[in-house]
Amino acid sequence: MASKKSCLIIGAGDDTGAAIGRAFAREGLTSCLVRRPRHKEALESLAQSIRDDGYAAQAFPADARDEEVMTTLIDTIEKDVAPLEVAVFNIGANVNFPITETTSRVYRKVWEMACFPGFLMGREVAARMLQRGSGTIIFTGATASIRGGVGYAAFAGAKHALRALAQSMARELSPKGIHVAHVVIDGAIDSNFIRDNVPNADKLREQSAILNPDHIASNYVMLHKQLKSAWTHELDLRPWKEKW
Amino acid sequence: MASKKSCLIIGAGDDTGAAIGRAFAREGLTSCLVRRPRHKEALESLAQSIRDDGYAAQAFPADARDEEVMTTLIDTIEKDVAPLEVAVFNIGANVNFPITETTSRVYRKVWEMACFPGFLMGREVAARMLQRGSGTIIFTGATASIRGGVGYAAFAGAKHALRALAQSMARELSPKGIHVAHVVIDGAIDSNFIRDNVPNADKLREQSAILNPDHIASNYVMLHKQLKSAWTHELDLRPWKEKW
Amino acid sequence: MASKKSCLIIGAGDDTGAAIGRAFAREGLTSCLVRRPRHKEALESLAQSIRDDGYAAQAFPADARDEEVMTTLIDTIEKDVAPLEVAVFNIGANVNFPITETTSRVYRKVWEMACFPGFLMGREVAARMLQRGSGTIIFTGATASIRGGVGYAAFAGAKHALRALAQSMARELSPKGIHVAHVVIDGAIDSNFIRDNVPNADKLREQSAILNPDHIASNYVMLHKQLKSAWTHELDLRPWKEKW
Amino acid sequence: MASKKSCLIIGAGDDTGAAIGRAFAREGLTSCLVRRPRHKEALESLAQSIRDDGYAAQAFPADARDEEVMTTLIDTIEKDVAPLEVAVFNIGANVNFPITETTSRVYRKVWEMACFPGFLMGREVAARMLQRGSGTIIFTGATASIRGGVGYAAFAGAKHALRALAQSMARELSPKGIHVAHVVIDGAIDSNFIRDNVPNADKLREQSAILNPDHIASNYVMLHKQLKSAWTHELDLRPWKEKW
Repeated sequence: MASKKSCLIIGAGDDTGAAIGRAFAREGLTSCLVRRPRHKEALESLAQSIRDDGYAAQAFPADARDEEVMTTLIDTIEKDVAPLEVAVFNIGANVNFPITETTSRVYRKVWEMACFPGFLMGREVAARMLQRGSGTIIFTGATASIRGGVGYAAFAGAKHALRALAQSMARELSPKGIHVAHVVIDGAIDSNFIRDNVPNADKLREQSAILNPDHIASNYVMLHKQLKSAWTHELDLRPWKEKW
Repeated sequence: MASKKSCLIIGAGDDTGAAIGRAFAREGLTSCLVRRPRHKEALESLAQSIRDDGYAAQAFPADARDEEVMTTLIDTIEKDVAPLEVAVFNIGANVNFPITETTSRVYRKVWEMACFPGFLMGREVAARMLQRGSGTIIFTGATASIRGGVGYAAFAGAKHALRALAQSMARELSPKGIHVAHVVIDGAIDSNFIRDNVPNADKLREQSAILNPDHIASNYVMLHKQLKSAWTHELDLRPWKEKW
Repeated sequence: MASKKSCLIIGAGDDTGAAIGRAFAREGLTSCLVRRPRHKEALESLAQSIRDDGYAAQAFPADARDEEVMTTLIDTIEKDVAPLEVAVFNIGANVNFPITETTSRVYRKVWEMACFPGFLMGREVAARMLQRGSGTIIFTGATASIRGGVGYAAFAGAKHALRALAQSMARELSPKGIHVAHVVIDGAIDSNFIRDNVPNADKLREQSAILNPDHIASNYVMLHKQLKSAWTHELDLRPWKEKW
Repeated sequence: MASKKSCLIIGAGDDTGAAIGRAFAREGLTSCLVRRPRHKEALESLAQSIRDDGYAAQAFPADARDEEVMTTLIDTIEKDVAPLEVAVFNIGANVNFPITETTSRVYRKVWEMACFPGFLMGREVAARMLQRGSGTIIFTGATASIRGGVGYAAFAGAKHALRALAQSMARELSPKGIHVAHVVIDGAIDSNFIRDNVPNADKLREQSAILNPDHIASNYVMLHKQLKSAWTHELDLRPWKEKW
């Protein structure tokens, strides 16, 4: 089953990205899920599970840092799947090193993962949406998007740059009908990582003390559905118990 | 028809406040609408129009700056109407004077209208909600909440102070189950004032170039409905065509 | 010994205010020191100690919240002492209460001490400086000026409002030749309070781990001396060891 | 004439960088001036003019984006010139393109010029300064460091990332004795570019309506001289006439 509109999710990992893919599929869009080729199986199984639920989804294993790959991919989706109504950039790269132990390789790589493909996606999707005068582009931010911290020179750098991209795009594209939003996720997400590494993860989940990916996703859908007299550019999401 | 839960709207004026009152009534809450006694008729007619639509609302003409009046009012609502699940502070006082022409009367009055009753409402409602461990408190902000501007010493002062209240309350009360949010409304609202004073108001409305009060209100309802693993403390709302 | 220019310090307490008064006197201005009448003796002894060092200072015990008192005082200084070249607002009112234990008296009083007289001073001084097209007005801020915190609804409210005043005045008055600055003091100050209440105060002072009032003051003088092609509106000051 | 301490200026262009180099040389440091090899002559003539005035300076034409070049250069300075007491990163790359006309080459290059070498300098200099427990590192920011704007996705991205670097380094290194500061330069600088392209540049200069590089530089020296009980991490500099 295919819909007449599609949603691109760059960074369709097991947790937040997957939940966002599911949520927009439930809204009737075909979720086009992008993740690195080495996670091809997980990605295809995610797409299949969405289809099993009766919604539309396709897996596109791809390296989002490769301009040609991305441009071709977006062309393909627009032609073969459906015009993109929504695009979500959701790649993170949370690392922490003392400044003197941050290699230039790490510093550059974090930017190349967590920021540069956001620019590629943003630009390519914007070009298509501008022709139609509508569409929603959402960037996933983090605490590090709005403040630096000990050990976060690389990660906060990439996240700050992504926020600058989102804000610059919003100021340029909103008056042309494209809704650009940036979501500051300020807290731990209920993820494989948390489940494997935090002893009381179950309790935290029960208490809603960690972010439920489905709840994050429903806020992304909410942003997409906002009427254009009252658009939000930036909001924060954090668990009720979070200190900030 | 009365519901088992109530919503307090301080500053239930003709536009945004009215829309918020209607929106929460449609959600099944009894909207308790508060506005200055001299607008008693408009307030009662608003309450009546909500009831005519089959929802629950009551008018409470009152001076929100008067501590005893407010404390008694909130007690009355809790006892005679229903426990407060939502409270919205929506009083503005947008004035603009050069600093040397800002009288101390104006400076003080703006704070007494746009900030002080927000504190009274916040504290009194929080005390009740803390006993139940749940509830939503929303403060209406403006551009002046986050930046000062020429002529805005008084208004930005009150709005900055209100934002500090919202943020301090959120950090204290969120971990106790109460969702405190602050909405930065950044643009002109489709209001009586605009309709009377802006020549092309109709065109602006058609284009969604001014904020539709109903669209603002639906974002307040959205905030109230957010699940507690992913609460938003602050979001901005602006028309797509707005420069910022 | 009197100079041809004067400096007003509202909130000339024992620590920061005193240091600022001394610093501007050393620059050749007559420091006009204002503090509540009940601290009259300390105030006069501060003025005397500045004069003993060979500089110019006068004590003006006064309630800075009283508009008539302030207007008269500023008139008196301009006529009898010297035109005001610098004015510093330095009254704090750091209190912390849970929101439900914050009385309206406290909430109002904190604003009336830490914000309202800043407005009175700012307006009155600006009116005089505008005639001359020059002058420096500095407001003392705190961490609470830029973020709310648990228990800080009242204090952060007043400090946010003061920051909005400073920013609004700067945007209006800078192009007219008046330098308006806001200093965010983010850390404990080496004060009577610290010396009496913190066991290791001596060690903290030796390590420069608390703010030295003289070092704060030299930054205020620096702001006043900035050339008008490169004015600073806001800077933070914190000890090197401070976590932030 | 060589001094016992040195100052590194990455981005020692004709205007701000040159002024900073001169200012620290006047403070008794040996200014080590770095600029791209293709500006070798201008760089050497700057160093010579500083020496002609009786101060110490050396030209180091180098590509600041090259890690090995930078590491070697900093080693050389530390061994052959003098230990680095101050390091200033001053490379800009102000470009403006609509998002759809921003090539990936431009997007990447702007980051590689205006951010990446700031990281290299910061890390390498920090490693040396940490051994001595002292030093000052200053990053030049811009309006785009704190807000995105139409056409500024690339430039604001690089500048936001640089600010995140500065803030992360400050939080980590200040408690270890190293002063890290970020200066937001918010306005046009009196430069060759302005002189060649703005018709009334002379009048703007006379009025101090554009930033004088020497006045910028004296604020950098001021930051370096701040005593460690009261360090500034971030300040803005703008001409008095600037709208903001």
